[in-house]
Amino acid sequence: MADSKFYGVIPPVVVPLDANRELDVPAFERSINRMIEGGVHGLFFLGSSGEVAFLNDDQRFQLLEEAVRIVDHRVPVLAGVIDMETERVIKQVKRTQQYDVDGLVCTAPFYALGGPKENERHFRVIREHAELPLFAYDLPVCVHTKLDPTMLVRLGNDGVLAGVKDSSGDDVQFRWLMLENEDAGHPLQLLTGHEVCVDGAYLGGADGSVPGLANLAPREYVEMWDAYQAKDWDTVKEKQDYLARLMFVTRRVQATVGFGAGVGAFKTALWQMGVFNTNQMREPVQPLVGDDVIEIVRVLKRAGLMDVASAPRL
Amino acid sequence: MADSKFYGVIPPVVVPLDANRELDVPAFERSINRMIEGGVHGLFFLGSSGEVAFLNDDQRFQLLEEAVRIVDHRVPVLAGVIDMETERVIKQVKRTQQYDVDGLVCTAPFYALGGPKENERHFRVIREHAELPLFAYDLPVCVHTKLDPTMLVRLGNDGVLAGVKDSSGDDVQFRWLMLENEDAGHPLQLLTGHEVCVDGAYLGGADGSVPGLANLAPREYVEMWDAYQAKDWDTVKEKQDYLARLMFVTRRVQATVGFGAGVGAFKTALWQMGVFNTNQMREPVQPLVGDDVIEIVRVLKRAGLMDVASAPRL
Amino acid sequence: MADSKFYGVIPPVVVPLDANRELDVPAFERSINRMIEGGVHGLFFLGSSGEVAFLNDDQRFQLLEEAVRIVDHRVPVLAGVIDMETERVIKQVKRTQQYDVDGLVCTAPFYALGGPKENERHFRVIREHAELPLFAYDLPVCVHTKLDPTMLVRLGNDGVLAGVKDSSGDDVQFRWLMLENEDAGHPLQLLTGHEVCVDGAYLGGADGSVPGLANLAPREYVEMWDAYQAKDWDTVKEKQDYLARLMFVTRRVQATVGFGAGVGAFKTALWQMGVFNTNQMREPVQPLVGDDVIEIVRVLKRAGLMDVASAPRL
Amino acid sequence: MADSKFYGVIPPVVVPLDANRELDVPAFERSINRMIEGGVHGLFFLGSSGEVAFLNDDQRFQLLEEAVRIVDHRVPVLAGVIDMETERVIKQVKRTQQYDVDGLVCTAPFYALGGPKENERHFRVIREHAELPLFAYDLPVCVHTKLDPTMLVRLGNDGVLAGVKDSSGDDVQFRWLMLENEDAGHPLQLLTGHEVCVDGAYLGGADGSVPGLANLAPREYVEMWDAYQAKDWDTVKEKQDYLARLMFVTRRVQATVGFGAGVGAFKTALWQMGVFNTNQMREPVQPLVGDDVIEIVRVLKRAGLMDVASAPRL
Repeated sequence: MADSKFYGVIPPVVVPLDANRELDVPAFERSINRMIEGGVHGLFFLGSSGEVAFLNDDQRFQLLEEAVRIVDHRVPVLAGVIDMETERVIKQVKRTQQYDVDGLVCTAPFYALGGPKENERHFRVIREHAELPLFAYDLPVCVHTKLDPTMLVRLGNDGVLAGVKDSSGDDVQFRWLMLENEDAGHPLQLLTGHEVCVDGAYLGGADGSVPGLANLAPREYVEMWDAYQAKDWDTVKEKQDYLARLMFVTRRVQATVGFGAGVGAFKTALWQMGVFNTNQMREPVQPLVGDDVIEIVRVLKRAGLMDVASAPRL
Repeated sequence: MADSKFYGVIPPVVVPLDANRELDVPAFERSINRMIEGGVHGLFFLGSSGEVAFLNDDQRFQLLEEAVRIVDHRVPVLAGVIDMETERVIKQVKRTQQYDVDGLVCTAPFYALGGPKENERHFRVIREHAELPLFAYDLPVCVHTKLDPTMLVRLGNDGVLAGVKDSSGDDVQFRWLMLENEDAGHPLQLLTGHEVCVDGAYLGGADGSVPGLANLAPREYVEMWDAYQAKDWDTVKEKQDYLARLMFVTRRVQATVGFGAGVGAFKTALWQMGVFNTNQMREPVQPLVGDDVIEIVRVLKRAGLMDVASAPRL
Repeated sequence: MADSKFYGVIPPVVVPLDANRELDVPAFERSINRMIEGGVHGLFFLGSSGEVAFLNDDQRFQLLEEAVRIVDHRVPVLAGVIDMETERVIKQVKRTQQYDVDGLVCTAPFYALGGPKENERHFRVIREHAELPLFAYDLPVCVHTKLDPTMLVRLGNDGVLAGVKDSSGDDVQFRWLMLENEDAGHPLQLLTGHEVCVDGAYLGGADGSVPGLANLAPREYVEMWDAYQAKDWDTVKEKQDYLARLMFVTRRVQATVGFGAGVGAFKTALWQMGVFNTNQMREPVQPLVGDDVIEIVRVLKRAGLMDVASAPRL
Repeated sequence: MADSKFYGVIPPVVVPLDANRELDVPAFERSINRMIEGGVHGLFFLGSSGEVAFLNDDQRFQLLEEAVRIVDHRVPVLAGVIDMETERVIKQVKRTQQYDVDGLVCTAPFYALGGPKENERHFRVIREHAELPLFAYDLPVCVHTKLDPTMLVRLGNDGVLAGVKDSSGDDVQFRWLMLENEDAGHPLQLLTGHEVCVDGAYLGGADGSVPGLANLAPREYVEMWDAYQAKDWDTVKEKQDYLARLMFVTRRVQATVGFGAGVGAFKTALWQMGVFNTNQMREPVQPLVGDDVIEIVRVLKRAGLMDVASAPRL
């Protein structure tokens, strides 16, 4: 791990929009700076939380250009190269590599599903067209395939993959992945996206985390990482409990389900906290309103992220 | 229905590749002409069977250009505008409309799932950016969402949708869709993609079918349609039984699952029948070989689509 | 088919309860007689719609005793022998065979799932302990396994199964099952439980149907069967359209999902029609009330099953 | 927690059969004694791993009688009362309470699914008929329903539930359950069945674990518990890593899937270790043979649970 720059807390960056549903560059800058000042060890753009599915290619690369400019090498940058099948991903890889990013993040094929053979070949073919380190993004909720630990370690050994961002929610498989990775000499950097269970992943030896919730509380995730490095497990647990409670922002949304409830809640929280100027969402998703906002404010106040005396923005 | 040009048998066109995995234009021409000469009433390009997920945008529009040139207005052309979420689909719509096609086919949002509200808004927003008739493509196997009949009819009434290609496999919902569409004055052309159960859809009053299997047997699907128009149900049933048996080409594939087994079997059959020059697949999918080919040949010979004396190409 | 007594319309009998949630024998008798007088060709007790999961063994066999007494050999009786795995089913078989029933209906194993080998062996072992004809009940919505057509025909050929009640909702597999069954000399009686798509199953050659909705409209299902026998497909379609619309009783339930919405709607309809005295459900399910009842009444009135002038019972 | 007797390591007891597929009482005694001598804090009989689905009622209660006799009050005994819906569970409760057991374990309704209302009412009605402490068994892999943390805590507060055995594999929900339970004053004893991730559950504050794998390695699970009580997290992690590797016995089974692969691997391991006399399974499941056995032996030898020089029993 010592020789990898990808470790620690690497938030997938949630994207602020202005009232016209365009990228709100000042708010983007404010949020990125807040996370870097909070001590994060990297940033991941154009992931699922980063609206990659909702942006056309021009919008994707406008965002990436701003991101790289704002980060300005203060921390390593990972960029998602998310598209349906191999050829389309290769196009994303080529264009992404024109920007000053440090690594690429790629899912299994989706839309037209195959089996394990196709998944493995997909990463191998992409590797041939990529110059930067490549992370597999294990994300069944979006791509409806679970990546097999043994295959991932094989791809690590063969120099295809540099690491894995695990958002599968399958902590058994992730534990097995960590064990098999150790047996193989740790070819992969293993990052969990399972933001409520990061402490368990650390206890198992994970190399870092990619928690969407770190957009709201970057410092607390960094403090949990630092405590992990110091083997101060009481603090690890305490921070995780705090963050698990903060994740309640996503739990009681009434208006919709899926992305609009999850990332919609993050945006609404960042708006209420004054980091974002709106909680606007990209089409066809609508921003949360009314009781959903009030419930989120309640969670934020309990977490000390909003002044208990301040009124919700509605 | 009389005033729509979208009815009858509209195969989703399977794409032949040469040995270098590039579009095999002569074979494409041969297959398209064979279907038109077989009497099909339209052709659908860039659908799931048409490899849309596996092509980058340049490849998509090269294919569409060839398709439009070959068809040359002999039948109406539908084109898939398949991408993850609204903004990306709008880009596909705009570029597709530069070609001489007659209608667009669009799925629900995928990758980042939402709920019914997002699905409905997705089609409404796309409608605002489209000039051609728009078909909803109900395809849970790829997009993991089932479209609600009542919503579809509402979108038909509001002029958002011109029709539905139903590949949901949910014949109950399709029957209800037909009934609700009748009650509303038939705003939607309703096409089933459920190739083994087309006869039941016709009995229920469907306006046509979009069967991938019609790439192999266009004439038989047309004969089934003609029998339906003549209310000759014995012939409808007889043709469907023949075609349901022909669909066995996809049933016993051992090498893989999903797209490589389904469309892979269609390509292998067309290759064995001499329509295609290879059964090559796009990355990361591999062509079928060995016993899988032999089993497909067995089905083709039983169906009379290969001479019983001819040896399989291997 | 000529030599089987299991064909035509065989409704799975929905069970009326009194205000104390006990079997309402007079209403049970009324409903059974109404179906027999409507011309049904058999009756199926202790199926999913027949509350088999909700009854303890004493309640199951009390119900079966009443059922057999009321039917009194006017039509053949099928009885569900539904339990988790093989040994438990064998117990149900042995006790059921003490009653004067004509055939047994058994699902794949559930709760502790296995694969195709376990499914096939399950039926073979049960056959060794059964004296009556055995039907496989293909019901993934309850048992989370789909039975393979080739396996079913093999079990038919080997004398293990006498038939299949297909409630899988997978009309492609059912068509293939019908074709393979024909090729094998029709060892199986094939009955569809897919009540909105019975016409398509008949066009494909099904031996009968097992529609829960026939509790509401037995005569119409019988008329559809008679039209099928006469090859009067216009009437088949017309009856199916009527029945597909009547199935709307289940579509808009707000209070709950699953059994309480589906069978709950059937019971509510039968109560409103005066066949049942209540719409009571077994624990832990609650009867439908309020707007759900009013919506069901609306569907019944449109179908002519309630006088348009009569007020709903609330 | 201090006032509950249900805490620590409570293995779900796997059941040895003799060559005739009957309960092998001497092996049962040997295995139970080995676990108690290993320090376990309780035993859970008639759970999913304990073959509850495969036993008829006579077999269930024969097993329970032997179990209670062998345990002889050395540790508390939990007994599964597993059946489809409320009335059937109540029967199981009444008969189970005739044996000298300490608590009952009950799943959500299955076979005929409902929604959250039915799940909650199910537990409340069962409570009315039960005299012993009642644990909810959250087991979506068998019952296809996930229990909501907020509902579980409400049932704890109302005295309906004494605890939860969580085998959902959803560690986010389990963390939230632990937090909500703390906020409510800890009405529930929270036990994880997620045997590869017990360390994370302990870090989150779990009251114990119910790991099937503890049949193979009871002492190691107890040592992990003791280390947890001593806040010796290095040892907790080390033990969990050892156990996570031992769980590889279940990973590479080729012969089948599901129960026969999972519990089948446990039985095969216990047979190879000399604790069981066979690896027989109940109908319709078959015991593992050949390469599956050899692979399990390889894992056991690596774990030090078999002498590296000893040959596999085949």
